[in-house]
Amino acid sequence: MAAQVIRPIEWRDGMLYLLDQRRLPREEVYLPLATAGQVAEAIHDMVVRGAPAIGIAAAYGVALAAAQGEKLEEAYRLLAESRPTAVNLHWALARMREVPQDAGALLEAAIAMHVEDLQQNLHMAELGAACFTAPVTILTHCNTGSLATAGHGTALGVVRTAFLLGKLKAVYAGETRPWLQGARLTAWELAKEGIKGQLIADSAAASLMQDGRINWVVVGADRIAANGDVANKIGTYSLAVLARHHGVKFMVVAPSGTIDMQTGSGREIPIEQRVADELLAIAGQRVAADGIDAWNPVFDVTPASLIDVLVTEKGVLEHPDAEKLQTLMRQ
Amino acid sequence: MAAQVIRPIEWRDGMLYLLDQRRLPREEVYLPLATAGQVAEAIHDMVVRGAPAIGIAAAYGVALAAAQGEKLEEAYRLLAESRPTAVNLHWALARMREVPQDAGALLEAAIAMHVEDLQQNLHMAELGAACFTAPVTILTHCNTGSLATAGHGTALGVVRTAFLLGKLKAVYAGETRPWLQGARLTAWELAKEGIKGQLIADSAAASLMQDGRINWVVVGADRIAANGDVANKIGTYSLAVLARHHGVKFMVVAPSGTIDMQTGSGREIPIEQRVADELLAIAGQRVAADGIDAWNPVFDVTPASLIDVLVTEKGVLEHPDAEKLQTLMRQ
Repeated sequence: MAAQVIRPIEWRDGMLYLLDQRRLPREEVYLPLATAGQVAEAIHDMVVRGAPAIGIAAAYGVALAAAQGEKLEEAYRLLAESRPTAVNLHWALARMREVPQDAGALLEAAIAMHVEDLQQNLHMAELGAACFTAPVTILTHCNTGSLATAGHGTALGVVRTAFLLGKLKAVYAGETRPWLQGARLTAWELAKEGIKGQLIADSAAASLMQDGRINWVVVGADRIAANGDVANKIGTYSLAVLARHHGVKFMVVAPSGTIDMQTGSGREIPIEQRVADELLAIAGQRVAADGIDAWNPVFDVTPASLIDVLVTEKGVLEHPDAEKLQTLMRQ
Repeated sequence: MAAQVIRPIEWRDGMLYLLDQRRLPREEVYLPLATAGQVAEAIHDMVVRGAPAIGIAAAYGVALAAAQGEKLEEAYRLLAESRPTAVNLHWALARMREVPQDAGALLEAAIAMHVEDLQQNLHMAELGAACFTAPVTILTHCNTGSLATAGHGTALGVVRTAFLLGKLKAVYAGETRPWLQGARLTAWELAKEGIKGQLIADSAAASLMQDGRINWVVVGADRIAANGDVANKIGTYSLAVLARHHGVKFMVVAPSGTIDMQTGSGREIPIEQRVADELLAIAGQRVAADGIDAWNPVFDVTPASLIDVLVTEKGVLEHPDAEKLQTLMRQ
């Protein structure tokens, strides 16, 4: 099967179209959005998810508001409040504020960000794959592919490029409870690309490592603090501890827009808690017994000390720390 | 709400009745079984699960075969092959072979094993809870309660007794993908008992520990090798590595019938792989994208070196090893 291009975000005829990721892999439906409020709601409801994709969607949200003659300050506020953890959202909105606040300039800025994200991903994927000196087996988590970005992906972009270069022996994907981004979205992307993958229960990752089946864990990031601590999908920190215990390498792939130099360390990153029902019910069906509550943080923080390689479009850092990040961000 | 007694296995009017655990927590339905073949099928299909409960069900299966005039050797073979990992099954069948092979003696032996398991659980729960010198917060995995045993449970028995003694601050339960025994069964038992619990995604355990929220991980076992390595539900090994990394104590609770002195180490324990569909579909609905395969081992092996305390009805071992286990089993 030939690889198919996946476009999660499209701008057409003055409207924003988002591929509704809640309905994947069953249905490929685009949701048309005409206002910043609708975009903010779509981000909150996870029609679009993945830190870079959220940033791009928010940028288009501002452009929509300007085109519709909405109050821009209100649009910025709504969009900024749509998800708390991913910093790309705030980074994208800050960039939008740097251009003239008229419809034409704002749309141009959003499109530029969209195109730039794809270019950055292709570049990061090359940098990441270049770290593999021999064919590797990779474990990835959540979805960090085309669906989470403008295209190609961050961590899954590295998987894609490694595959294209003949450097990928096998790829395992954690199903990523509670939202099952691995089972629903990463599996869908791998199939579209013709890459054979295997899904695992998130709790089986330790066994995979114990069996010596994987060489690298490769994940994305929702926010990187100034000291290199990484907030990412719940379960990432678990993989980082397990990887270190088993001598498996741990790589984070994220554009520099994910790096938040205003946040000193991971402890300061707000971690979004979502409703218990995401865990207690699956596909609208209650699976958990009545009378139980749930603790449902959707992100966790991996300390920089557990990260072997951080790949950004500005370059690759081994064992990232505050000093290396500062130097990188000055480039 | 007053605590309710849960009976997963009942012998009535010459038939075996198993509470169908596949249908919990939605429905409480008992499946009547009249032959050893039906019991073997029920074990394979996970109508009943949990190492001690499987052993007791298999013992009744032999008693049923004798009562029905079935060929006993065929019954022993069918039952022995129903699940590969739990050793209690083989232990229970070996005990059945030690009594006269007539219907009366075999039924008596099965009932004795049933009653003995409950007594052992109550005793182990006291021993386990006695390890807590101050009120504790516990994380448990899978279901190791009344449903997995003759009653009270192994690891969940320790949670129950700690609760009754006022030593339980809080309990978290991993949902336990792919079969969701935590969400469906442990949550159901906690609610029946009036113990307030919180469910987590299995991948959130590391965050719980990082936050300093738990003191002990308490789990059961499906087979313990002669050197103290423990095979248990997939995800147990992950919790053991994470617990050690965070200075959280790790306790295994299992009757001595779970200890297999014929198996030198965890490497020799057969690990059951179940069908990919258990991971790819939930409640009969396909959730994963088409074109993806799954790696679905349902158990993993935790090396003895990661276990702080092993609780059996014969006594408590700190840092179990081959020598301590040998001494324990001679008692």
